[in-house]
Amino acid sequence: MLRWLTAGESHGPQLTAILEGLPAGVAVQTSDLDLDLARRRLGHGRGARMSFEQDEVGLTGGVRHGRTQGGPIAVQVGNTEWPKWQTVMASDPVDADILAGQARNAPLTRPRPGHADLPGMQKYGFDDARPVLERASARETAARVALGAIARAFLRQALDVEVVSHVVAIGPVVVPDGVVPGPGDNPLIDQDPVRCADPATSAAMVAEIDDVRKNGDTLGGVIEVVVHGLPPGLGSHVHWDRRLDSRLAGALMGVQSVKAVEVGDGLETARRRGSVAHDEIVLADGRVQRLSDRAGGIEGGMSNGDVLRVRAAMKPISTVPRALATVDVATREAAVAINQRSDACAVPRGSVVMEAMVALVLADAALEKFGGDSLPETRRNARAYLDALTIR
Amino acid sequence: MLRWLTAGESHGPQLTAILEGLPAGVAVQTSDLDLDLARRRLGHGRGARMSFEQDEVGLTGGVRHGRTQGGPIAVQVGNTEWPKWQTVMASDPVDADILAGQARNAPLTRPRPGHADLPGMQKYGFDDARPVLERASARETAARVALGAIARAFLRQALDVEVVSHVVAIGPVVVPDGVVPGPGDNPLIDQDPVRCADPATSAAMVAEIDDVRKNGDTLGGVIEVVVHGLPPGLGSHVHWDRRLDSRLAGALMGVQSVKAVEVGDGLETARRRGSVAHDEIVLADGRVQRLSDRAGGIEGGMSNGDVLRVRAAMKPISTVPRALATVDVATREAAVAINQRSDACAVPRGSVVMEAMVALVLADAALEKFGGDSLPETRRNARAYLDALTIR
Amino acid sequence: MLRWLTAGESHGPQLTAILEGLPAGVAVQTSDLDLDLARRRLGHGRGARMSFEQDEVGLTGGVRHGRTQGGPIAVQVGNTEWPKWQTVMASDPVDADILAGQARNAPLTRPRPGHADLPGMQKYGFDDARPVLERASARETAARVALGAIARAFLRQALDVEVVSHVVAIGPVVVPDGVVPGPGDNPLIDQDPVRCADPATSAAMVAEIDDVRKNGDTLGGVIEVVVHGLPPGLGSHVHWDRRLDSRLAGALMGVQSVKAVEVGDGLETARRRGSVAHDEIVLADGRVQRLSDRAGGIEGGMSNGDVLRVRAAMKPISTVPRALATVDVATREAAVAINQRSDACAVPRGSVVMEAMVALVLADAALEKFGGDSLPETRRNARAYLDALTIR
Amino acid sequence: MLRWLTAGESHGPQLTAILEGLPAGVAVQTSDLDLDLARRRLGHGRGARMSFEQDEVGLTGGVRHGRTQGGPIAVQVGNTEWPKWQTVMASDPVDADILAGQARNAPLTRPRPGHADLPGMQKYGFDDARPVLERASARETAARVALGAIARAFLRQALDVEVVSHVVAIGPVVVPDGVVPGPGDNPLIDQDPVRCADPATSAAMVAEIDDVRKNGDTLGGVIEVVVHGLPPGLGSHVHWDRRLDSRLAGALMGVQSVKAVEVGDGLETARRRGSVAHDEIVLADGRVQRLSDRAGGIEGGMSNGDVLRVRAAMKPISTVPRALATVDVATREAAVAINQRSDACAVPRGSVVMEAMVALVLADAALEKFGGDSLPETRRNARAYLDALTIR
Repeated sequence: MLRWLTAGESHGPQLTAILEGLPAGVAVQTSDLDLDLARRRLGHGRGARMSFEQDEVGLTGGVRHGRTQGGPIAVQVGNTEWPKWQTVMASDPVDADILAGQARNAPLTRPRPGHADLPGMQKYGFDDARPVLERASARETAARVALGAIARAFLRQALDVEVVSHVVAIGPVVVPDGVVPGPGDNPLIDQDPVRCADPATSAAMVAEIDDVRKNGDTLGGVIEVVVHGLPPGLGSHVHWDRRLDSRLAGALMGVQSVKAVEVGDGLETARRRGSVAHDEIVLADGRVQRLSDRAGGIEGGMSNGDVLRVRAAMKPISTVPRALATVDVATREAAVAINQRSDACAVPRGSVVMEAMVALVLADAALEKFGGDSLPETRRNARAYLDALTIR
Repeated sequence: MLRWLTAGESHGPQLTAILEGLPAGVAVQTSDLDLDLARRRLGHGRGARMSFEQDEVGLTGGVRHGRTQGGPIAVQVGNTEWPKWQTVMASDPVDADILAGQARNAPLTRPRPGHADLPGMQKYGFDDARPVLERASARETAARVALGAIARAFLRQALDVEVVSHVVAIGPVVVPDGVVPGPGDNPLIDQDPVRCADPATSAAMVAEIDDVRKNGDTLGGVIEVVVHGLPPGLGSHVHWDRRLDSRLAGALMGVQSVKAVEVGDGLETARRRGSVAHDEIVLADGRVQRLSDRAGGIEGGMSNGDVLRVRAAMKPISTVPRALATVDVATREAAVAINQRSDACAVPRGSVVMEAMVALVLADAALEKFGGDSLPETRRNARAYLDALTIR
Repeated sequence: MLRWLTAGESHGPQLTAILEGLPAGVAVQTSDLDLDLARRRLGHGRGARMSFEQDEVGLTGGVRHGRTQGGPIAVQVGNTEWPKWQTVMASDPVDADILAGQARNAPLTRPRPGHADLPGMQKYGFDDARPVLERASARETAARVALGAIARAFLRQALDVEVVSHVVAIGPVVVPDGVVPGPGDNPLIDQDPVRCADPATSAAMVAEIDDVRKNGDTLGGVIEVVVHGLPPGLGSHVHWDRRLDSRLAGALMGVQSVKAVEVGDGLETARRRGSVAHDEIVLADGRVQRLSDRAGGIEGGMSNGDVLRVRAAMKPISTVPRALATVDVATREAAVAINQRSDACAVPRGSVVMEAMVALVLADAALEKFGGDSLPETRRNARAYLDALTIR
Repeated sequence: MLRWLTAGESHGPQLTAILEGLPAGVAVQTSDLDLDLARRRLGHGRGARMSFEQDEVGLTGGVRHGRTQGGPIAVQVGNTEWPKWQTVMASDPVDADILAGQARNAPLTRPRPGHADLPGMQKYGFDDARPVLERASARETAARVALGAIARAFLRQALDVEVVSHVVAIGPVVVPDGVVPGPGDNPLIDQDPVRCADPATSAAMVAEIDDVRKNGDTLGGVIEVVVHGLPPGLGSHVHWDRRLDSRLAGALMGVQSVKAVEVGDGLETARRRGSVAHDEIVLADGRVQRLSDRAGGIEGGMSNGDVLRVRAAMKPISTVPRALATVDVATREAAVAINQRSDACAVPRGSVVMEAMVALVLADAALEKFGGDSLPETRRNARAYLDALTIR
């Protein structure tokens, strides 16, 4: 069982994350985390904030000399802007006079439609949106990406599994059918300004983003995470919450802005008839194989050995420069919503967050099936399972 | 914290379910469970099996004289066909000679594409699909529906919340925009042969089902669950797995056949620009209100007090009468897949299952926020929270 | 991860239990459950009720032809006295007139000191102790014993582990130091009237029980569970709730009447100096061995390969025939506590409950370490781990 | 539901902890954590290491201007000795030549009897005890104490609950019966060199510690945690893992060195007859009261409104200066065990760790019963429950 928690505010001193349950012996170092954090900062459509972020990442527990030690792994991601915020976001009490002089400390009372602002203030009893948006901000996903890099290392070393992703839609611009990245394609896709694997579509996506930015608007889109090398049998049909699709759906819908999740061909599958909706099974090259991958590599809530494909649809960012109508909750008068600097389109970098969530779910499912307290032990168990498969 | 487990096989003696964590004092009786189980048997497109099912339901623990007692609630749903299966599905060992004479006991070795059969056999080391399909069968959802009826009773009595649903697509036939059932509409919708709230669309759906049945094919579709009366603040933005949308997505994707889940306008939201994708906030009739419900009642992973809307897309049933190509895993020769009697379209009755899953998630989230060990206590806490809201 | 829930009331129609997460292929049948349930009915000091109990046990899910199928396992234990209680404990509402005529239905308003009665009524808002004592009763442990029999079968078949127990104290009568049952000793101990492994002590225990019974009093005692064959490395030092001792302590203290839990020499260890409190390590017979087992087979929260020993101390039953002083909560007048027929001493049969709890914890810990979805897979992984140990 | 994880090694750069699930609005600041961390460093019998520790504690998430914000709370406790260890305990790979020159980096191959060393090496596949002992070290409890300070603040502010503790035995020296600290007694007890509430016994304990230190030996003892002000009804009788005694036992046994846990009079209760083992109930001063507190404030797995008392027995530290026999696992030759500087007796400061564990369990149980996302909400719900009690 893999457990993890993240903590920290958008403008706080740092994000903190702990990952508990990973075997000993996994090779991981700061540069692995840096790599994915840098990938998360990429993408056409990002706002001014992203270029400030430096993501000073540190492994502060659980890893020694580049190997996990079996205990909980602690990660922190520093905030290079902290000096500007250290009074406004101080953990300890600050003198009222000092705070009064800080413009940044003024209560935020014009909640953004589509954001956590208003229900968060109601739930927690705040009259200022600051405590809500500090935690609801997508900045938090940097902590998940850092942990995802560790889960990715485990999957690769224990199971030869590779998790990649690409952007399949930005607003109305959609990638053609059949584009599925291979296990080694992430570096290439990272070079594309919108992380799209199809150059022609990429150009149209970039144009669309430029247009919304010009118009003070924002854009969402759809990300597909593709996983190569999974053994059959992760997850289970025996109880709903053991199903791999259920766990992936919960994880992806658990990312800020996601409003839909699909497995394989997803919604399209609901439109097809049964005779053309499934993946027929044949014997080819001495192996039991499927003729297609409409199911996205999951049948009966289990990985089936095919390429896993899951999609997350992100809504456009709710901080819209051309601001939306709201109510100032302090005065109860009509107002325009808070407008903090933000991205025009967060989808390209969102893809790195989705990879992280998928990697964390798969690492958990792999440990559930194969057990193991050290990388050699987990790898040996997985190997022995595959060797013993009578149907293959 | 609400916990629940279900057990039982499709042709076993009964399904068993336990629900742990519900307060004392909730009014519930066998007829409440019967009602939802009967609703689950409705629907044009159901197969022969459904008309056999009688769902002999019993409350065998946790309820006395029509009131929950605070302890775990046990439910069983009998299988009226059990006498025919009692040897083949006996829990205790059966003499080999006796089994040999039972046609129903013959190993099932032609796994169905799209079903749990093949990965289930690989994962658990079976050379017969029987143990997999017995548990993977949608029959199991009767147990969830029984528990869902209890969760529904709690939500109604503690929070005045009503969970309803309707079918919004069957294959390519889609309901027009803007059809959203009201809190009391379930009985009316139950009378529609496909649980569609729009009569004209319903007729087209029925025709589509008749056509696939004639052609030995199957159909999927999309269900929308609609919840009225939720207070703001269920779920939370503070951690991904506390988000209400994450928990609902996991629950709906945890139902057999579901391949996509949407919250509010879902995928459509990813196509819109930010200026027209969110729900602007205004003061009207002395209350802070939203001008639309594109978000489906969830912002920042929390209920926002608006109507909650979530959708689940089901693939067509994978037991296709016009059988699909597969491999006989005993002989390794090409074959046609197992074909057990089944429905042409399970979407109408699937809607009752989705209601159950949503009710269970919401009951859990409500208990997390309001606590309480008796219905009066939970209700009092919820009432006091609403009365104390400063933003409303 | 092994999950389990039990449900049912003492005088309800049945107890129900579900065990989720056990691999497929474990050989288990009704008679295995019967055996442990029969052992739970043994013991000098039991009251009239125990001889009525027949424990009509049924495996109603998850097991076919004597083998687990990978899905949740459902068990029910029928109550042979149900006909007498079917009105008073009916799940559905009963006509008030009918209930009024039932003496058994009269509210119980004189809470027993030491029992759940009073805090349970306060917590759940009852003015009758019936709903509390029906669930708090030790009758519920029959469901745990049934599940424990399944966990025991798994441990034996996957790991060659044997869980036995003996009574080490009844009231002031204590077994001499050094009595530790071997892996096959349960049948012999079951023949002792108080499940004591030392005949001389047993006689004194029987005399003590006879004396308290004569005096209308009750007795507690101490049980030791002993586990043979555990591999080193179950549980972990890396986080408090992964520790095997923590999990065992929670499980044993989670049994009715337990007021203390010890691991190994327990409290005695706290009195010794460090130089004589631990188990020195030597090389003997080519193996790394310990010279003693003061630690009870757990070091650093992990099994160390030695014999595991844990103890649970049960208080005397709180239903004391020579009834205790209490307050009638209906009249607020002084009263004597409810006195339902009960045992003079429940310790001998309590030992079977403690075995069950230990077996369930160990099965969970074993699956966490070794994974596996079928018995051969778990066994193979465990075997490979032992073969690869470099320190042994 | 309260969740928490700790991470970090004894000689790593820092300990890290995250506490998730606490309501917003709890007043807490760095000095609250400092206070309990300072208390943890007190006590006669501590070794050289303790006086080095400065515990540079920081709240790095979840708290702003002295109030919790509803999100996860992150804490770090710096290691002032880190400069000496930064190469040996570096998270990233270090050049082999550099490491070779570091004496501190030499593999530790002589496992200590009683410590996690040997089973930890076996479980995780290490040939060096360093990775095990770095995490198994009691240094980790500083992280728990920091979180415990936050839980304590919540309990005090939401429920007027006070958690105190005292040492009731050091080796064979035991405090007389009937010594139970009051809610405000911690500061006074902190001034005692062994945190004993009885001056005469304290002197004998100090003498005992001095004697073992002189003899190169170590001592354990028993700690009692006492909680004032708990409402009735925390925990529950309805399922074993909801019982408050079960959860407390798991938490206390989850602390390094603990070998036994008692609730109320614990083991002594198992020796008494039923007529003198429970707490009779009377009406006095217009309130339902108990004549004694043998049960330690827990009946039926629930708090009963009386003073809660739980005890943890710690074994003597397993790093014994007069070193124990072991085997060098590198050479397989007889050896003496690793001897790192350590305390002669850790019991006095262990009491602060036990308080922390108890506070964390109680905060979780309180949130389960009362819910609430802000301190006023939780407090209001608790108040309303107490006001509505019909039995009091």
